[in-house]
Amino acid sequence: MSLHLMRDLENLKREILTMGGMVEEALDRSINAVMNRDADLAREVLHGEEAINTKELEISEEALKVLALHQPVAVDLRYVIAVIMVNNDLERVGDLAENIAERTLDMARLSEEPVPYDLNQMAETVRLMVQESLDSLVNQDVQKARRVCELDDEVDDLHREVYRIMRALMKEDPESVDRATHVISTSRALERVADHATNIAEDVVFMVEGEIIRHGGIEEAE
Amino acid sequence: MSLHLMRDLENLKREILTMGGMVEEALDRSINAVMNRDADLAREVLHGEEAINTKELEISEEALKVLALHQPVAVDLRYVIAVIMVNNDLERVGDLAENIAERTLDMARLSEEPVPYDLNQMAETVRLMVQESLDSLVNQDVQKARRVCELDDEVDDLHREVYRIMRALMKEDPESVDRATHVISTSRALERVADHATNIAEDVVFMVEGEIIRHGGIEEAE
Repeated sequence: MSLHLMRDLENLKREILTMGGMVEEALDRSINAVMNRDADLAREVLHGEEAINTKELEISEEALKVLALHQPVAVDLRYVIAVIMVNNDLERVGDLAENIAERTLDMARLSEEPVPYDLNQMAETVRLMVQESLDSLVNQDVQKARRVCELDDEVDDLHREVYRIMRALMKEDPESVDRATHVISTSRALERVADHATNIAEDVVFMVEGEIIRHGGIEEAE
Repeated sequence: MSLHLMRDLENLKREILTMGGMVEEALDRSINAVMNRDADLAREVLHGEEAINTKELEISEEALKVLALHQPVAVDLRYVIAVIMVNNDLERVGDLAENIAERTLDMARLSEEPVPYDLNQMAETVRLMVQESLDSLVNQDVQKARRVCELDDEVDDLHREVYRIMRALMKEDPESVDRATHVISTSRALERVADHATNIAEDVVFMVEGEIIRHGGIEEAE
């Protein structure tokens, strides 16, 4: 591998980690905002979105430049393709953080008390999945990547549980419909973040082993 | 461009169109199934899912092989990257068709009459978006691709409307909760299909003009 290529691949790695850090922070803040009904924090997440979008564009362009300039092969080629795909997934996690932040502002506008449902366990698992998927990318750790994929089933189960309980609540107490649908929406956003973390982990496996694995399950649209 | 590269790019195009056709058919069937509560048709969609997943893997592998063998540059490079991204989006549309089919089976199990809400206009627009995004890919038609992106706002509005009306219905009639949440889920799946069609259209613009455009809005998690 030429020194130039090595330097450019290192640079791409640094950039995707910066992007990962920005997205992780947005996600953490949006989760804290929704848990604590903190409208100010939610607004901070919304303000940070543009920087994430800009970073995504920079990385896409950089990755294409590396492909065009160096025409890498084998594992290096797979690495650059993985960066393009991971970048895409990270940007969507950023969108979902924005979405959770907007949900927080909607909820803050309601005068009633929130419905008593704790999304903490789900939020923790999803946060862990994002962290671990990025870790597995940096360290090319396939074992860790496969563990992320396994956690996705847990999150799907947790989301189904939220959905079931909120439906029962709405039937019992029609007054709770607005608040309960906000809980469902937040839970669904978290579940979709978990899907993106899983995609990232799958890309890591592909990058390291050249093997394409896919998410056995279907995209959860509940 | 070498003859080999030209032949392989043509082959990729044919393959992605085959994939597009398979996914379009799955989507059409799932929409017909959910509209007519046709459980048999829904089951056909579920049976077809494996063929779509297999085709996606074949195309991914083929695209990587083209990159490794020919090391294309400029517009050819962007074309292969676009194929990788479009392939990914098409597979997710396939997942959403599967999702709508599963929703149909859930709804068929309910004994009550469906809630009176017509998703036809939304389904038509989404179907058109998928068709036009594939058309724009084949014909490298940037104008058509941009029109697809515009239609996405319409679908988002239609989805918000469904959400608003179903929420009002659930408040009024708690008995309708299960049926109304099915309508919301189906509408959301359609709205996400529209997002993927938009991604495809954006990839076409990128491929032709080298310009990366992005979906201004946030990912809709309602």
